[in-house]
Amino acid sequence: MTVAYDGTEFAGFQVQPGRRTVQGTLEDGLARVLGEGVRVDGAGRTDAGVHATGQVVSFRTEHTLATRDLQRALNAVLPADCAVRQVGEAALDFHARYRARARSYRYTIWNGSVRLVLGRQYAYHWRSFLDVTAMDAASGALLGRHDFASFSGSTRGRDRPVDLVRTLYRLRCWRDGDRVVIDATADAFLPHMVRNLVGTLIPVGAGRARPEDVRVILDARDRRLAGPTAPARGLCLTDVWYD
Amino acid sequence: MTVAYDGTEFAGFQVQPGRRTVQGTLEDGLARVLGEGVRVDGAGRTDAGVHATGQVVSFRTEHTLATRDLQRALNAVLPADCAVRQVGEAALDFHARYRARARSYRYTIWNGSVRLVLGRQYAYHWRSFLDVTAMDAASGALLGRHDFASFSGSTRGRDRPVDLVRTLYRLRCWRDGDRVVIDATADAFLPHMVRNLVGTLIPVGAGRARPEDVRVILDARDRRLAGPTAPARGLCLTDVWYD
Repeated sequence: MTVAYDGTEFAGFQVQPGRRTVQGTLEDGLARVLGEGVRVDGAGRTDAGVHATGQVVSFRTEHTLATRDLQRALNAVLPADCAVRQVGEAALDFHARYRARARSYRYTIWNGSVRLVLGRQYAYHWRSFLDVTAMDAASGALLGRHDFASFSGSTRGRDRPVDLVRTLYRLRCWRDGDRVVIDATADAFLPHMVRNLVGTLIPVGAGRARPEDVRVILDARDRRLAGPTAPARGLCLTDVWYD
Repeated sequence: MTVAYDGTEFAGFQVQPGRRTVQGTLEDGLARVLGEGVRVDGAGRTDAGVHATGQVVSFRTEHTLATRDLQRALNAVLPADCAVRQVGEAALDFHARYRARARSYRYTIWNGSVRLVLGRQYAYHWRSFLDVTAMDAASGALLGRHDFASFSGSTRGRDRPVDLVRTLYRLRCWRDGDRVVIDATADAFLPHMVRNLVGTLIPVGAGRARPEDVRVILDARDRRLAGPTAPARGLCLTDVWYD
């Protein structure tokens, strides 16, 4: 299923006891519709506050409900901040996360002098003018297969990735009026990786760092050299790619 | 001042005792910044749930604070769902409502088969496909100076307009992907007028009424013939025009 959600009121994708999560909400909805408990797997384990327009999830059921009817029934029981955009059948060995070849995220910065009111939930406000040409130039140095340790957030326990090498296929920064948009596609992203990339590109756009500094930060493999983690509200999982 | 607000959590523009209103919020903010009570007048008295990106308000003060400093101080005390986009000085006899020559509103319909998640607060969901060409054709018949009694909502007491003649300068319906947008500009609008126009155009787009029926409804001057009032969430005051 392709799923959209407004991350504002969710404690992230992944189930956590006593918290409202996207996975838990989908599993509750499926239980009501199918009359059986199912485990939902998501392509991207988005953090609290991160949005999605194209999250992909998979689950197994022996229920024979048509995909069209499943979608309709599920959307009728899901809350307003979560909706199923598409449902399809897949091979039994399909898994939304393990089979994903790439993920695309979009980060939106509201770069107006006055804060955004309509849609403020979906953008991070940065007041002073950002030079997107400099940011885009810095982005170019990050493309390709690298150890992204400098941009990896710390996570606890078994979710901590051991291998920090990822392949960044696309990283573009562009301006649409007062909006600065950063589009990123990689085979997979480390925890907080997009938000840490954005937090490192913003100082470049603000003239406090040079585009070539970003390559130095990447090569150092040291999280302390990169910028801060940009706020979750600006981030959205837009696409997941499969063979 | 040009003001933007997200109408979702406001009980409309106009002050009402014990309710959270835009006027009350602006007056509270100005009292904190100026240290004096001021009365704020707005160009459009938007209903509960209606948004604005270009509301214009005026007030009088003898305070000598620079407009730039006033804007900054006011935005610092206003809540996240209300912001001042611009501040300027005007002649002493300026009045945001009485001097306004025209108002522009935009109504947004989400016309996708699955409900909108991101930005759902700013659009009304209509599932079945709307024919915007038919809607736009119907709109043409409404342009000009008419008695818009068929499209006037009932309001109580002294706010009820006696003269129901208004001049509609522009009414256009167009599609942007799954979004249907209706732009309306008039010298002034009657209560609920834009939402009643939209509620009458939707049946035309859905094929349940013909474009020429709208002219008949207008001429009848009978509210019972027009469609229902479209929900407030889709409506936004975008511009106010002065000489």
